[in-house]
Amino acid sequence: MAGGGAAASTLSSPWRLLLQRALDTNAHLKHSTFFQLATVGGGGRPANRTVVFRGFQEHCDKIQINTDARSNKIGEIKEWPLGEICWYFTDSWEQFRISGIIDVIDGSCPDPAKLQQREKAWFASSVKSRLQYLGPSPGVPVANDDHVTDVHLDPSAGPVDAYCLLTLDPEKVDYVNLKSNQRLMFTRTQEGDESSDWMAKKVSP
Amino acid sequence: MAGGGAAASTLSSPWRLLLQRALDTNAHLKHSTFFQLATVGGGGRPANRTVVFRGFQEHCDKIQINTDARSNKIGEIKEWPLGEICWYFTDSWEQFRISGIIDVIDGSCPDPAKLQQREKAWFASSVKSRLQYLGPSPGVPVANDDHVTDVHLDPSAGPVDAYCLLTLDPEKVDYVNLKSNQRLMFTRTQEGDESSDWMAKKVSP
Repeated sequence: MAGGGAAASTLSSPWRLLLQRALDTNAHLKHSTFFQLATVGGGGRPANRTVVFRGFQEHCDKIQINTDARSNKIGEIKEWPLGEICWYFTDSWEQFRISGIIDVIDGSCPDPAKLQQREKAWFASSVKSRLQYLGPSPGVPVANDDHVTDVHLDPSAGPVDAYCLLTLDPEKVDYVNLKSNQRLMFTRTQEGDESSDWMAKKVSP
Repeated sequence: MAGGGAAASTLSSPWRLLLQRALDTNAHLKHSTFFQLATVGGGGRPANRTVVFRGFQEHCDKIQINTDARSNKIGEIKEWPLGEICWYFTDSWEQFRISGIIDVIDGSCPDPAKLQQREKAWFASSVKSRLQYLGPSPGVPVANDDHVTDVHLDPSAGPVDAYCLLTLDPEKVDYVNLKSNQRLMFTRTQEGDESSDWMAKKVSP
């Protein structure tokens, strides 16, 4: 079940067809686009948090995630760029464990193409979700009497410093369907910017 | 917001009250007892999977998880016993990130008290869920023509070799409520078998 190299569109990566089906089946649930991203922090401590799926990067399988450049995880991921997504679909009882390398694309990124992706992802977010990057740094102590200050944002303004795009480039996808009790393990066999081959193996759940 | 040492029941650990409320509010959803457990595997790779909350161990805050002793994670956790749970409640929009040390209690455990906990957790599981430990090892390749063999289990029989109890002893709990936009960070300040003190800090989400 390997793709056909350059001839095969990455859109037909076998696990992406399963993932698209799961997204369609669970589309009525707001939380169907939420998943948990595990990384490794200081002292080898596992870290795990819920994030939102922001689509795939064009022409490849990279998974996009918006995050705050001021959060702890940015430094941790720059230090150790491995991640595993656990994406459980609560209606169809399907789980995707997607592991790969994470790329941190913040305002300091020297690559113009990546900065362009960041800008594109910024404008793809709602103005409401962009506003959070104007608030206080995540995890900073707040006093009980802190008042919420009104923040305004010009909808045509580009990404603010605190906005960071993460992309996870999948290397292995472990899929399990708890209704049919089937499990498939997908492993990338070839790396490339535009194409990848995948091997699929049926394993016991 | 610290507990009163020996005087304070661990049942009143401040984050447990929030967790119990979330469990009650989301009890109508089958998946409200599912969470994602992140650990660190070989080569420092983060690993993340959905598991089921099997309650707290009696008289303490340890979180119980059933698992298959034949799965990869057992060896990995024995090697590096740190874990972080990410528990997102889809109806109340609350997230608990619970990090701590994981104890692996399989049949080879030399501690009689722990073996007793394992037996207790085994009998607390449904007979149907016990049956999965009689199936093939998780992750082992299966041929398409593998037929499902009927397995039977005496409901009064004790834990099988493949059954393993994990307990995670919380050291830090990061709670966020996305409806009220409030975040609280709980840190354990004192270790003890029967009692713990916790500090709570209000931080920005």
